Amino acid sequence: MKRIAFLLIAVAAVVGLVAFTPPAPGHADGEAAPIFGVTIPPGYRDWRLISVAHEAGDLNDFRAILGNDVAIKAYREEKLPFPDGTSIVRLAWSYVASEENNKVFGRAQSFVAGPPINVQFMVKDSSKYPTTGGWGFAQFKEGKPADEALHKTCFPCHEPAKARDFVFTRYAP
Amino acid sequence: MKRIAFLLIAVAAVVGLVAFTPPAPGHADGEAAPIFGVTIPPGYRDWRLISVAHEAGDLNDFRAILGNDVAIKAYREEKLPFPDGTSIVRLAWSYVASEENNKVFGRAQSFVAGPPINVQFMVKDSSKYPTTGGWGFAQFKEGKPADEALHKTCFPCHEPAKARDFVFTRYAP
Repeated sequence: MKRIAFLLIAVAAVVGLVAFTPPAPGHADGEAAPIFGVTIPPGYRDWRLISVAHEAGDLNDFRAILGNDVAIKAYREEKLPFPDGTSIVRLAWSYVASEENNKVFGRAQSFVAGPPINVQFMVKDSSKYPTTGGWGFAQFKEGKPADEALHKTCFPCHEPAKARDFVFTRYAP
Repeated sequence: MKRIAFLLIAVAAVVGLVAFTPPAPGHADGEAAPIFGVTIPPGYRDWRLISVAHEAGDLNDFRAILGNDVAIKAYREEKLPFPDGTSIVRLAWSYVASEENNKVFGRAQSFVAGPPINVQFMVKDSSKYPTTGGWGFAQFKEGKPADEALHKTCFPCHEPAKARDFVFTRYAP
């Protein structure tokens, strides 16, 4: 057993200590999303809260929308369009009933965030993304980007929010 | 004009620059909640996200739970009980259907945070609050604390979560 453990440690060392490095909050890694080339920004799980949302239906998820410092400043100053350097992340988790909370409230009314589903980013760089409103888009699941077909849907889906610089989420005070 | 500006600056210096300090996000002010004496911690709206929740039924709210640095560290290290200095805030907004988002999704499925309802705090100080699990509790609406009767309900309601140091919310990765 000791020998196997030693071998495992040696292998891990060779592949860059991946197995023994505690995961950085938010699975930051280097793989870029197709079309826009957006990578996961390190530390995005530490960004400040913009708002929350719930999509019922097929998605049935719970969402938190966070922004980096540039995004939060722009929101609070109600500045549009968002300046270059703005990054916004939408985290999604399964929408799960909480039996534990329901017991406390004495009725079935409580829903909480379950396992993570995926994360989506909007990154503002008006010179890099002139044909998509200045925004680069990306979706990742467990650190891996979604395919090109999905990324083709990002900007068309966001176009109805053109009057708010293609961002749907409003700041929740 | 220069003289007036100078006078204004002088006056501001005397009153502690209050008039010239932009309002801290989150209605921080000095009025303490009954029983526990908890005041609104300045800058709590900048704290990092722990998780999100929805209470249906009579409450019908959307919730975000944020933590100060001590809280986030304890959550990520899965450290229980939470150390002294931990502060957790639960923000609540109305649970509102988004017609705008529904149009984009092509069906009625989208819910977002509406107007704010209130904020609740849990503050860990084991020497100050020995009879309530080490926690002080507080609820504020538009900067004003709720009454004593409400604050009497905080700890009994949290007692079922004793195994997790009286905190219901789990960290959402």
